[in-house]
Amino acid sequence: MTTGAARVVARLKKLNEASDDEGALTRLTLSPAHARAAAMVRRWMEMAGLAVRIDAVGNVVGRREGATPDAKTLIIGSHIDTVRNAGSFDGNLGVLLGVEACARLTNKPLPYAIEVVAFGDEEGVRFPTSLTGSRALAGTFDPVCLTSVDEKGVSRRDALLAFGCDPSHAQFEARDPARTFGYIEVHIEQGPVLEANKLALGLVTAINGGSRGEIVIEGAAGHAGTLPMNMRKDALAAAAEIVLFIEEIGKKGVELVATVGRIDVPNGAVNVVPGRARLSVDVRSPRDDDRMRALADIRAEIARIAAARGVKADLNITYDMPAAICDKTLSAAFARSFERCDHPLFRLPSGAGHDAMSFRERIPQAMIFVRCRGGVSHRPEEFAAPADIASALAVLEDFLDTIGATQ
Amino acid sequence: MTTGAARVVARLKKLNEASDDEGALTRLTLSPAHARAAAMVRRWMEMAGLAVRIDAVGNVVGRREGATPDAKTLIIGSHIDTVRNAGSFDGNLGVLLGVEACARLTNKPLPYAIEVVAFGDEEGVRFPTSLTGSRALAGTFDPVCLTSVDEKGVSRRDALLAFGCDPSHAQFEARDPARTFGYIEVHIEQGPVLEANKLALGLVTAINGGSRGEIVIEGAAGHAGTLPMNMRKDALAAAAEIVLFIEEIGKKGVELVATVGRIDVPNGAVNVVPGRARLSVDVRSPRDDDRMRALADIRAEIARIAAARGVKADLNITYDMPAAICDKTLSAAFARSFERCDHPLFRLPSGAGHDAMSFRERIPQAMIFVRCRGGVSHRPEEFAAPADIASALAVLEDFLDTIGATQ
Repeated sequence: MTTGAARVVARLKKLNEASDDEGALTRLTLSPAHARAAAMVRRWMEMAGLAVRIDAVGNVVGRREGATPDAKTLIIGSHIDTVRNAGSFDGNLGVLLGVEACARLTNKPLPYAIEVVAFGDEEGVRFPTSLTGSRALAGTFDPVCLTSVDEKGVSRRDALLAFGCDPSHAQFEARDPARTFGYIEVHIEQGPVLEANKLALGLVTAINGGSRGEIVIEGAAGHAGTLPMNMRKDALAAAAEIVLFIEEIGKKGVELVATVGRIDVPNGAVNVVPGRARLSVDVRSPRDDDRMRALADIRAEIARIAAARGVKADLNITYDMPAAICDKTLSAAFARSFERCDHPLFRLPSGAGHDAMSFRERIPQAMIFVRCRGGVSHRPEEFAAPADIASALAVLEDFLDTIGATQ
Repeated sequence: MTTGAARVVARLKKLNEASDDEGALTRLTLSPAHARAAAMVRRWMEMAGLAVRIDAVGNVVGRREGATPDAKTLIIGSHIDTVRNAGSFDGNLGVLLGVEACARLTNKPLPYAIEVVAFGDEEGVRFPTSLTGSRALAGTFDPVCLTSVDEKGVSRRDALLAFGCDPSHAQFEARDPARTFGYIEVHIEQGPVLEANKLALGLVTAINGGSRGEIVIEGAAGHAGTLPMNMRKDALAAAAEIVLFIEEIGKKGVELVATVGRIDVPNGAVNVVPGRARLSVDVRSPRDDDRMRALADIRAEIARIAAARGVKADLNITYDMPAAICDKTLSAAFARSFERCDHPLFRLPSGAGHDAMSFRERIPQAMIFVRCRGGVSHRPEEFAAPADIASALAVLEDFLDTIGATQ
């Protein structure tokens, strides 16, 4: 392992100390733990020669100017907030790799400026809104989010003020796309694909678009002993058909995933034919067309099943987010760095959301994934091997060394 | 409608007053409402010329002696306890029809004695055990049930003592099969089959045997976005296959019903691939062989699905009750009464349990069903039409008039 990678690993461990829970890592946005983590990151950024400020929405921004005043800015970002009882690597790894890559560049003139940004609102655990840090840079910050309140009734506005920010200046954080080179992010995969392929790194093709919805089925409850099979309108049996169809849609799709994660038969009892069932649906794809086609197929199949069984069934979409396609030029540069660093080029979509998706249609973005053990994330067992972290750092450094030449 | 049927309808209404809930019919076993109902039934039995006693386990027993001292006894029974927020007809109808049929016979010498019995423990709502009244007559009363406690901690023994019974004498209530002609019961169908066939009455072939169990599936939880379809061990998708197979088993069977009434994905969330699922299964049939074969098929299919999906799945049977086949001779006599009363003979099994099943393999039993509106039972909307009640009374009276001749 390189000295740089060893430092990243040591800092990831150190950053665990910034937690609001004893014995577990919990660092919700704008919490005391977030403030402590931001202070640590600030110091490490300064040690790397960056000029650091906490911006209007709580991001830690470390800037390194380019060789010329008109040099465009490359943003390297990820987040330092976490879920409750989190792992160490989600978000934090990308921030610390960005800092470390800059440390090596200290005295080297570059044809672009760099901003390493530690966003602080990716997980969406404390407030119902999220990604506000990256959206501020993308220019899509919605001031309505300032009125979101946490479970104690504290608004995001008040939390930002307590954090030392001036949320009324949020709109001034928007980066000018004409002066921004791009956004890149390194993140653990949070899935098992790289591990299954025995690869340390992967190049992200897109952050999947996603739709979520609820399906409600109204059949007719009845006595499980006295209601003959041919007179039933069993809501759960209809739901079961829908579950299997949704699974089939996912299996037939390319890089599409489709999941029923929740199911409920209200007042269900062993001796009652289910009269009502509710289930969730979650469909994601790197291609919005595929996702829309999958939803249309699911909707048609629900109607067919409902008609065949004499039940009512409806799909209500509650969330819809288009895919964020990674930029071809930035991705091609990463691909060349993979090659130069002797890493097989493996492309995969991101099934989870990331700050990078905030830049969709605003600023070109690209991501690389680092293998994580068992695909586990959002749990203390989350783990990325030091050797893989070293690989990611080498690719990132190569990318920074050579990206200027492509401008 | 005959005078007799009108009296039955009027008494059903009167009996509604014996309730422990204001504005709803709730008459749990050995409750104050049960005591009031028992007193009413006692009086009506006495008016019908029966010698009445409350027995050791809370049954109201009205006896009419036969023409000769060695005459065997025919028991006509059903129950007067109810579920919470019950309908008027479940159980009560059969008791009052028995009383009414005896009233007409007052001075007629018969070659058999009659006991009309109002059981008081059919629904099993108050205590975890049930059917103790009919089991006492069948000779299968288990004294362990005396230690059952209700939700207030009152034991069945104390409740019986408070009801004026001496539970230590329960075993003396067992009827000698050699001196017992048979047991007959009239009951509302509690299902929709007679209504669908536009028939007032049906002749019961058997009270279905039933098995209940729980199926637990252990897959692997995962991120709904990052876990590719081909790497999933989705417990709910496996459960869905099982639900549909169980439904198919029911549809393929003759008079077999198979139901999944409950399903649960613990900690299920829209964005999590289900790692665990639990579901109930309920299988009933008038033929024990068919039920056992169905369970074996379900067990085999669960194993097949589990192997194909790489999940663990087990079926644990928690309840198992053999079918109670109705007696051929008694049923043939009912069939002749159907014919003489101009009712098409329609045979059907009973999907619900009844006091009659306590007599399985002890005393011959037979049942007839009365159509109930919409198949609804255990709800205030439960309804049997006066005309259908009159039909049931006519068949019962014909049965009593002619059954002696077949002895």
